[in-house]
Amino acid sequence: MKKYYLASASPRRKELLGSLGIEFEIMPAVSEEVITDTDPAKVVESLSRQKSEEIFHKILTNESADIIVIGADTVVSYKQKILGKPKGTDSARSMITMLSGNVHQVFTGVTVMYRLNGQQGSVTFHSKTDVEVYEMTEKEIESYISTSEPYDKAGGYGIQGLFGRYVKGISGDYNNVVGLPISELYHVLSNLGLL
Amino acid sequence: MKKYYLASASPRRKELLGSLGIEFEIMPAVSEEVITDTDPAKVVESLSRQKSEEIFHKILTNESADIIVIGADTVVSYKQKILGKPKGTDSARSMITMLSGNVHQVFTGVTVMYRLNGQQGSVTFHSKTDVEVYEMTEKEIESYISTSEPYDKAGGYGIQGLFGRYVKGISGDYNNVVGLPISELYHVLSNLGLL
Repeated sequence: MKKYYLASASPRRKELLGSLGIEFEIMPAVSEEVITDTDPAKVVESLSRQKSEEIFHKILTNESADIIVIGADTVVSYKQKILGKPKGTDSARSMITMLSGNVHQVFTGVTVMYRLNGQQGSVTFHSKTDVEVYEMTEKEIESYISTSEPYDKAGGYGIQGLFGRYVKGISGDYNNVVGLPISELYHVLSNLGLL
Repeated sequence: MKKYYLASASPRRKELLGSLGIEFEIMPAVSEEVITDTDPAKVVESLSRQKSEEIFHKILTNESADIIVIGADTVVSYKQKILGKPKGTDSARSMITMLSGNVHQVFTGVTVMYRLNGQQGSVTFHSKTDVEVYEMTEKEIESYISTSEPYDKAGGYGIQGLFGRYVKGISGDYNNVVGLPISELYHVLSNLGLL
């Protein structure tokens, strides 16, 4: 009997992990995130590891079953510079203006920590997707930042929502942009015998 | 006052068109589809035009307002050969086996027919997305075709559902694979003053 844990409160990650047909418990990591790098791929890998480790150690002693903890972190980057969540209207405007008419990258790092038949192990990987955004008019930018959508999201946009009309195309895994590269995660779990 | 009509019964197209924030009526085309070509791009353009025309002419005389009718058709193709909806288990197995480990194309054609201030016009375009599928094991193929997912879908799969775990990545518009290239449609409508 395997018990799965998702170390994230994101409803989008919950939905994606659910598509694998497994049952899992949501247990968001709460520790302060510690960033010691500027390279987006290394940052998301490190943050996913921090989240996963926190939850793994929290449940390890209280749970005798096989356990699998999945942690993930997503950032948006433009020209290798990480864009966080916008702090207000001005910050959202400058992020969306930067993305307009350009190609940017979305990185998600994922860490799987597990104890299976008494053996512990972990795997960390990241996935990168290029996202091309149409040139936006000033009116379109103002209209978008006047909605609530940009303010809780890395890079100031959500690809599934109102911003979809401005996304010309992507190259890579779409679900990675949503927040969890589910096909790569499925293959990692499958290859480790964790499904 | 503009009235919008979607000439399709697809719930996925309904959701995507809804993301533009417009209200519209769903009026699926019912005429027999007439295919006179083998090129996937020409086929989807032609079918989208047939659907849109049918509904446009149906409402033209009964409606005095400005009207905009949107028709769309999606096909999956591998090596320029169109894959329809699988007719049963054998047909689904052979389609998924064909897609496994390869890159295929999804084409959606869209036709917008309108009457605006008494003037009629129409625009037809298509969008193409490359989809790369992981190599699947026999067990994975059997497991997938034993679900209900493949049987009402062109090419035998739905990118949003259980098949997501097998999609390595795409190049192009994700929503085009879902069934409606909403960003290109938004720009067409916007440029014609139809929004």
